[in-house]
Amino acid sequence: MLGIGIDLGGTNIKGALVDDKKGIIEKFSILTEADNGCDYVLDRISVAVMRAAGFADNEKPIGVGIGSPGIISWDRTTVSTPPNFPGWDVVDLSKEVKKRTGFDCRVENDANCAALGSSRFGAGKDFKSFVMLTLGTGVGGAIIYNNKLFRGDTGGAAELGHVIINYHGPESNSPSRGGIEAYIGQRFLSRYAVDILRRHPNNPLYKKFKSEPEKMEPLDLFNAAENGNEVAIQVLESAGEKLGYAIVNYIHVLDIRKIVVGGGVSNAGHWIFEPARKAALSRLLEPFHDGFEIVHEPLGNDVGLLGAASLALEVIND
Amino acid sequence: MLGIGIDLGGTNIKGALVDDKKGIIEKFSILTEADNGCDYVLDRISVAVMRAAGFADNEKPIGVGIGSPGIISWDRTTVSTPPNFPGWDVVDLSKEVKKRTGFDCRVENDANCAALGSSRFGAGKDFKSFVMLTLGTGVGGAIIYNNKLFRGDTGGAAELGHVIINYHGPESNSPSRGGIEAYIGQRFLSRYAVDILRRHPNNPLYKKFKSEPEKMEPLDLFNAAENGNEVAIQVLESAGEKLGYAIVNYIHVLDIRKIVVGGGVSNAGHWIFEPARKAALSRLLEPFHDGFEIVHEPLGNDVGLLGAASLALEVIND
Repeated sequence: MLGIGIDLGGTNIKGALVDDKKGIIEKFSILTEADNGCDYVLDRISVAVMRAAGFADNEKPIGVGIGSPGIISWDRTTVSTPPNFPGWDVVDLSKEVKKRTGFDCRVENDANCAALGSSRFGAGKDFKSFVMLTLGTGVGGAIIYNNKLFRGDTGGAAELGHVIINYHGPESNSPSRGGIEAYIGQRFLSRYAVDILRRHPNNPLYKKFKSEPEKMEPLDLFNAAENGNEVAIQVLESAGEKLGYAIVNYIHVLDIRKIVVGGGVSNAGHWIFEPARKAALSRLLEPFHDGFEIVHEPLGNDVGLLGAASLALEVIND
Repeated sequence: MLGIGIDLGGTNIKGALVDDKKGIIEKFSILTEADNGCDYVLDRISVAVMRAAGFADNEKPIGVGIGSPGIISWDRTTVSTPPNFPGWDVVDLSKEVKKRTGFDCRVENDANCAALGSSRFGAGKDFKSFVMLTLGTGVGGAIIYNNKLFRGDTGGAAELGHVIINYHGPESNSPSRGGIEAYIGQRFLSRYAVDILRRHPNNPLYKKFKSEPEKMEPLDLFNAAENGNEVAIQVLESAGEKLGYAIVNYIHVLDIRKIVVGGGVSNAGHWIFEPARKAALSRLLEPFHDGFEIVHEPLGNDVGLLGAASLALEVIND
């Protein structure tokens, strides 16, 4: 069975043709050019849908799933005020895509799509329930409970980046001061690294990024750590420790002990995960130690596309 | 329909005969005398069950539900290592009660029973989903989602007192340093109050409790606050503010925006709730403001008995 997965971003629209057994058949990326307004972007999405459909040989894809920013309606049709999309207010994406392409279409928020993709094709496949964290510019979250998305009362559950670990901690771009995103979101992590590096002006990382801290990628910190750079190690350990405290909060609320971590920052791998595991174990109530695991999602950004396509490939009741 | 609710505590065993429409018909309390060991306590529970049954006129109760401390098995039969019960290890309470009384019996942890009771008979009746907080010596938590208990992977969900709001905050009697219980659990609240009062030796509360801070009840703080005692007001406001941050965490994870608060500390009422509401609104992401509510559970400890009886009165699938 074939489905089409679309990952709608402010800069790029990614598309894929997905087989429910084999995963991604073909994938690609086109520019969103969101500045041209809503109608233009809807046309771009349709271009992506038709391009994905074009990769199918004999079989017709059964539908389209879209991972989108913004607030998604409970029935998975409508997107409200996605950030970085000028001219969007409330858009029935499902209807617009159907009108333009003929395909049935469902929408889900991008973090939930990543979790669905991990659950069906990735590291989450082995777990009936898990918490998915996507560590990127921000920290995205989703909850899979008994193989289904846990969506809360209105579909807005799992704003896990905004879970507070220190109520008088640093500000981020949300009102949840001291949320985990303010410690481990890519922008905050890089800025923190450069602040620390200021005290180590001979450190090669400082020389490279002092004028443009926002260009420092988690991979730069990871590579430096691998080469024994003490400051990079310290920065990643400190971020990992904070992540561990946030994980304690997720587990104490949900009693779901499998944590799957994807996104760019997760490429800093064991330098973050090991301190996170240690910090979490130091604060978790004892009965929750059993079965606790932090797992890296190896499929990278593909989970978003796979999860989006799963919206088309499955009857999802939740 | 009649059911028997039992609330098993380290000091008292409370019992009630409950009608599924009318609520509590008759209730009572007997001593647990837990020091006499497991068999003795099982006999005491049976005494309570038979006494409750004795209040029924023509109709036979259909079964027994027990709210218990300790870890409860997923199938609601067995209790493991309840604190303050010497000589208990793993006890199939369901089987033991059936053997002694002839009644079918199911067990659930006490915080979950309180939430069930509130959901069926109390402030939670109006809400399909809500978070229940029981503010007492510790902070108990439970989650009702779509009218059912959300139990997590093993039945241990909603350890809400151990959700961290400041990872380098105060210690409590758990490894979750800086958990909300360390700020608002009765013991910690009283100790904090006396610490503040030391700087105000003429304050009537200081005079009364300086040698025995643990005797200070939330009601003492409430009454003092009502009489304009500035220190009492400050202590309750500070505790309420912390509670607000914890509530932000529950809502950002669950997207469940109704918070029902019971337990002894909740009797300090608006002196805690109003600062909690204010602090939560200052940190909640904007979409979660809509429908957010903190509600006092007016039924007090009765919700535990009502919820326990509900285990007998309903087919509960979760």
